[in-house]
Amino acid sequence: MARDEFALIREWTGRSYGLEGNGVSVGLGDDAAVFSVAAGMEVVACCDAMIETVHFLRETMSPCDIGYKAMISNISDIAAMGGIPRYALVTIGVSPGWQADECKRIYEGIDQAAKLYNVRMIGGDTVATPDALHLSITLLGEVESGRALRRSSARAGDLLFLTGPVGSSAAGLDLLLSRRERAVEPRPDWQTLVAQHQRPTAQVEAGRLLLKSGLGRALNDISDGLASEAWEIAEASGCKIVIEAERVPMLEEMRSYAASVGKNPLDWAFYGGEDYQLIGSVPATEAETLAAAFAEHGLPFYLLGTVEAGQPGVWLSEQGSERPLPKAGYNHFKDEAGEDQNG
Amino acid sequence: MARDEFALIREWTGRSYGLEGNGVSVGLGDDAAVFSVAAGMEVVACCDAMIETVHFLRETMSPCDIGYKAMISNISDIAAMGGIPRYALVTIGVSPGWQADECKRIYEGIDQAAKLYNVRMIGGDTVATPDALHLSITLLGEVESGRALRRSSARAGDLLFLTGPVGSSAAGLDLLLSRRERAVEPRPDWQTLVAQHQRPTAQVEAGRLLLKSGLGRALNDISDGLASEAWEIAEASGCKIVIEAERVPMLEEMRSYAASVGKNPLDWAFYGGEDYQLIGSVPATEAETLAAAFAEHGLPFYLLGTVEAGQPGVWLSEQGSERPLPKAGYNHFKDEAGEDQNG
Repeated sequence: MARDEFALIREWTGRSYGLEGNGVSVGLGDDAAVFSVAAGMEVVACCDAMIETVHFLRETMSPCDIGYKAMISNISDIAAMGGIPRYALVTIGVSPGWQADECKRIYEGIDQAAKLYNVRMIGGDTVATPDALHLSITLLGEVESGRALRRSSARAGDLLFLTGPVGSSAAGLDLLLSRRERAVEPRPDWQTLVAQHQRPTAQVEAGRLLLKSGLGRALNDISDGLASEAWEIAEASGCKIVIEAERVPMLEEMRSYAASVGKNPLDWAFYGGEDYQLIGSVPATEAETLAAAFAEHGLPFYLLGTVEAGQPGVWLSEQGSERPLPKAGYNHFKDEAGEDQNG
Repeated sequence: MARDEFALIREWTGRSYGLEGNGVSVGLGDDAAVFSVAAGMEVVACCDAMIETVHFLRETMSPCDIGYKAMISNISDIAAMGGIPRYALVTIGVSPGWQADECKRIYEGIDQAAKLYNVRMIGGDTVATPDALHLSITLLGEVESGRALRRSSARAGDLLFLTGPVGSSAAGLDLLLSRRERAVEPRPDWQTLVAQHQRPTAQVEAGRLLLKSGLGRALNDISDGLASEAWEIAEASGCKIVIEAERVPMLEEMRSYAASVGKNPLDWAFYGGEDYQLIGSVPATEAETLAAAFAEHGLPFYLLGTVEAGQPGVWLSEQGSERPLPKAGYNHFKDEAGEDQNG
C-alpha cells in the first residue's frame, strides 16, 4: 500500500472524527489526544486486537464487519465494568493484500459501531505489516469512582445471570465455514446466527443498569465462552459456581442449526465465545428486583445458576447431577488463542 | 507458541505490574483497567505500533531493545504534549518464530523503560500473528487542563528550538546495517550512535519544563525526522519556518561516522527520525529566559531557526541563501512508512 493511500485513510478518519470540543481538548492530528474526565468519574481502559487468520478470515467477515466487531469487542469490555464507552484509539496494520478501499470500509465499520455507542476516535496509528491485517483498538471510557463492577465480587449466596443467549456467534461461524466446507444449505432463519457472529451487540445499557441500580455484583463479558468467563469469576471471587444446563439461554435458531449438523448446542454456548453478553452475579435477595429493572428497560435477563462457598471452580448441573465444567474454550482457526491481559 | 507460553508471559507481566493502588482502582486481570485522574488534570492518550521488518529487524534490535524503544516512542508523544506519562496498555502479536523467552525479554525492555519514566502497565492483549512480531502500545498520561502544548501554537516572531542532537539514531541504524552489508570496522565512539538507535531517551523533563514555565509555545517530537516534524508545526500553525543549517545540533560521533561513509550528516538529521528530541517554538523575547531555565535543569537547549509570517512551509538557510526543505522523510526498511494519526 502506497504512502498516499495511508494518507487517504488518515484523511478519511480525520474527517469523520477529528473534531474537538465536548470533553476533547486535542483530537486527531497532534502527538497525542487530550480529554477531560468529569468530576466523580474514573477512566476505564482496555485494548483488544483482531488478527487476520487468527480471529477472522476474509471469507467470514467483510472489511466493514471486521471494523465493527473490533469496536464491539472493546466496547463490551467497558460494558463489563459498568462503564460508559467514550474514546477509541485505533491501530491498523495493513498487509500488501489489502487495498485502500477495503481499509476505508474497515473504518466505516469502526465508525458505525462508534456512532451507535457514542464513541469518538481520538487517535491511532496506521502501519504496514508484511502479512496479515491486524486491528488493535484501545477503548477509553468513564465509570463512577470506586464503583466499577469486578470479576472478583461474586459471593456465596449470589445468583448467576446472563443478559442474553449465548453460542449464537460460534454457530454463525460454523454456518459460514460449513457453507464453504460442507455445502450445507442454510435455512433463512439461521441468518440470525451469522449476524450475531459478524455484527454482535455490546451490552452497555445492561452494564450501566447493573452499576446504577447498585444490584449487580460481579460482572464479566462473554468473549471467550460461557465456561471460561464463569471460571474467571469463580477464580477471581474464590467461589464455586453451579450452572444449570437447562437454564442456559440459547436462540431457537441456534438449537435447530445445531440439530441439523449433529452438534450439542451447549458446546457452542460454553466454548464458542464472542457473544458479548454479560455474565454476572446478584445477591439472591435482590434478583427479583434486578429482573424487574431489566424488564422495565426492555432488556433480557436470565438466571442460570448459583454462587456457592467451596473450592473455586465451575460445575454443570444437568438432569439432577453435577459435574465439573472444564475451563478451556476453543479457538476457531488455530490451536492457540489470544490471551487478553485485561479482557 | 503454545497457550501455556502465553500464560507465562501473562503471569510474568501480571507479577510485574498488576498491583492496584496509587490511582489505579483496577489493574491487570479484569475486563478493563480503571484509574483516577487528579483534579485539574486532563488525560493525554496516544498509541504507536512497531512491526518487525517495517520498524525493526531482529539483527538490529534485541528483544529487550524492541520493548524498550516501543515504550520510549510512546512516552515521547506524551512528552511532546508537555504531559506526564502514567499508564501503558501493551498489545503484543507473537509470530511462530518468536520464543516465549524472547517475548519475556521484550517485556523486560518495556519494564525497564516503564520504571525509568514511572509508567505502570495496566492492560493489554497477547495474540498470535501468522508472520511478523508486532508491538502496539497505548500510553496514557496526565496534563494540566487546557495547557497541553500543541503543534499548532507557533506564531510569527517565535524562535525554533531543539532539546538535543538529531540524526544519531539514523546514523546508528546505518552503522548496524553496514556492519552486515559493507563490513565497516566501527570506531568505539560510534557505539554512542547505536545506543541512540536502540535505547533512545524521551524528553519528559524538557516537556514538563516547557509547559510549567509557560514559555513553550508549539511542541512536537522528532519521530519522523526534523524536516517532517518542522513541516507539521508549520502547517498546523500556518507559519513559515526557517532552519539555519549550521545550527542543527548533531553529535560529533555522528559527523565523523557520516564523513567515513561519505554521507551528508544533515540528511540523517532531517530525514532520519526516531531521535525523540523535542522541537518547538518560543516567543523570541522569552528565548533567553527559557534557555536559562533549561540550563538550570541541566537540560540541553538549541536555537535553530525562526518562525515567520508567510506561506506554511519549511526553508533551509545555508551559506546565506534559503531553499525549501522537502517534507518527505524516508523509511528504513521499506518504501511505505507508518502514518501516525496522532504522532
